[in-house]
Amino acid sequence: MTHRNHEDNTSPTVAVLGLGPMGRALAAASLAAGHPTVVWNRTPGRATALVAAGAVLAPTVADAARRASVVIACVINYQAARAVLSSLGSPPRGPFVNLSSGHATEARDLATWAAQRGVDYLDGAILTPAPTIGTPAATILYSGPRDLFDDSLPALESFGGSSVHLGADAGTAAAYEMALLDLFTMSVGGLAHAFALARAEGIPPAAFARFARGIGDLLPDMADRFAEQLTSGTFAADISSIASAGSAVTHVVDAAAARGIETGPLRAVQSIIDRAVAAGHGGDSYARLAESLVPADHP
Amino acid sequence: MTHRNHEDNTSPTVAVLGLGPMGRALAAASLAAGHPTVVWNRTPGRATALVAAGAVLAPTVADAARRASVVIACVINYQAARAVLSSLGSPPRGPFVNLSSGHATEARDLATWAAQRGVDYLDGAILTPAPTIGTPAATILYSGPRDLFDDSLPALESFGGSSVHLGADAGTAAAYEMALLDLFTMSVGGLAHAFALARAEGIPPAAFARFARGIGDLLPDMADRFAEQLTSGTFAADISSIASAGSAVTHVVDAAAARGIETGPLRAVQSIIDRAVAAGHGGDSYARLAESLVPADHP
Ligand SMILES: NC(=O)c1ccc[n+]([C@@H]2O[C@H](COP(=O)([O-])OP(=O)(O)OC[C@H]3O[C@@H](n4cnc5c(N)ncnc54)[C@H](OP(=O)(O)O)[C@@H]3O)[C@@H](O)[C@H]2O)c1
Ligand SMILES: NC(=O)c1ccc[n+]([C@@H]2O[C@H](COP(=O)([O-])OP(=O)(O)OC[C@H]3O[C@@H](n4cnc5c(N)ncnc54)[C@H](OP(=O)(O)O)[C@@H]3O)[C@@H](O)[C@H]2O)c1
Repeated sequence: MTHRNHEDNTSPTVAVLGLGPMGRALAAASLAAGHPTVVWNRTPGRATALVAAGAVLAPTVADAARRASVVIACVINYQAARAVLSSLGSPPRGPFVNLSSGHATEARDLATWAAQRGVDYLDGAILTPAPTIGTPAATILYSGPRDLFDDSLPALESFGGSSVHLGADAGTAAAYEMALLDLFTMSVGGLAHAFALARAEGIPPAAFARFARGIGDLLPDMADRFAEQLTSGTFAADISSIASAGSAVTHVVDAAAARGIETGPLRAVQSIIDRAVAAGHGGDSYARLAESLVPADHP
Repeated sequence: MTHRNHEDNTSPTVAVLGLGPMGRALAAASLAAGHPTVVWNRTPGRATALVAAGAVLAPTVADAARRASVVIACVINYQAARAVLSSLGSPPRGPFVNLSSGHATEARDLATWAAQRGVDYLDGAILTPAPTIGTPAATILYSGPRDLFDDSLPALESFGGSSVHLGADAGTAAAYEMALLDLFTMSVGGLAHAFALARAEGIPPAAFARFARGIGDLLPDMADRFAEQLTSGTFAADISSIASAGSAVTHVVDAAAARGIETGPLRAVQSIIDRAVAAGHGGDSYARLAESLVPADHP
């Protein structure tokens, strides 16, 4: 969209719509990068510190958008983002970048809806928590038209860390976000459950953490092995088999039950393992579990 | 037990009882370290390669134990280990080290049972898979009388990596093993589920692995934060709160359901989160989830 004509690509005026913990972090990072920054929030009273740091508080979404060359929306979900888009009045002159969380279908639907209204829509997904924003630890994924990403980059870079464009399909960033949140949720659940069992067994938390770190250290390589095997479609159990995971989880369910700790999360994983074994995959590697979870009618 | 009198502490004769993948790895490592090694398995035919490498095949458990200064049992579970112990005839002259998997109560019960029969019993738990045995990557935990551990060490060290004695209570090694297997099972379940969702969304496995590695990288520090907060009993949500995990998991459950992927594991974690929020802990950090899983009547 080379027809758009920013006043100065390296010094955008940034509007941040939505001032929850993440919106506030984005606005603060924009200010810290020296960009003129306009902020808005549905409920008043969230902008005090930002205004003290130099932000301009806009009374309406339309007013905020009118003043900005790049509009960032960061509200609780896509329904809220759609409400914000509806309040724009006329399309903003620059990209509208939606960093609210949701799944891929919601992102695609909102992108279509925005395009129909003449809005240059880019979707994004923030992978790291608010305190990382403005630091090298931040990772934000984007998808949608590449030129919108390029045009927005001077603003987006102020949020720090890695800004990754994943492709033209507006749903891609949200798809990655969901699959990564899936892994994150299960990992947090696993840590909580394991520390609970350790505590019930009288193991001091710090002593347990020492070995729990070691399990964490295995994950990056396991992720690579999953990827290799799912790509090749071969599931050699070079290290451990689904059947041995099945016998391990049986021991752990017993141990947790004996201590009165809820076994639901373990039993849910166990049932996936049991089904794979029943389907004849007991001798295969763990990566086969991922394949057997995807419905057969998947494209 | 300074009364025991090994012929030569630095060159034990090792018996390995049980020749599944792990028993075979232990026997091979013992041979590789130059220790005279006697092997036995319930079902014949598993020792061919070990005998070719220099092991002596014993016809019975009693015969194997009689020839050895340290006896290692590595069978499928504690019930099988008890069957092996029952076949000893008279107590072996050196330590009996049980490396079969199970939970802490089983380990304590078998230790008591063995002591009543005059067997010097040490319990152990192998944390790493068979291919690591004999390499620096192996980690094996032990618990039971410290002098038995010290006496066995020349044999145990041949299994490689870290040999860690955790204390005199025979159940401790098994307790650690169960809590670590808990975390491992949930992590494998999480990887499988996340790769399934990624695949259903059309994300190439290798592209997904790149970001999944990043989630793995967070775990070691999260384990330390859990330990600190569980020790201090304070749960400041310095980075993310249970409530925000709850809103994330809702998005992910929707995304998985929309793709026909089973949501059981996620919903089991969600129900733990929901209960913590209902109990008023929504503003706390994830570590509070571990505390709220341990039954109130826990000692
Ligand atoms: N916080 C993090 O560390 C983090 C990390 C990664 C991703 N994210 C994502 O970033 C987004 C924002 O998160 P957050 O932590 O800042 O807080 P949040 O609690 O997810 O969202 C609060 C914000 O959404 C606004 N909002 C809710 N409904 C609205 C509506 N109908 N119309 C307009 N605004 C509405 C709220 O306005 P009011 O003040 O008026 O209620 C507030 O500004 C979420 O999608 C979240 O998943 C956050
Ligand atoms: N493999 C690993 O990577 C790994 C990692 C960590 C811990 N472990 C633990 O190590 C132990 C052994 O594992 P594994 O992988 O070698 O194989 P496994 O399948 O767990 O156990 C097979 C062994 O148990 C024997 N056995 C079963 N019931 C018996 C009984 N009633 N009496 C005597 N022997 C009996 C089998 O003898 P038969 O040949 O006669 O059936 C065979 O030698 C398990 O507790 C496992 O959890 C294994």
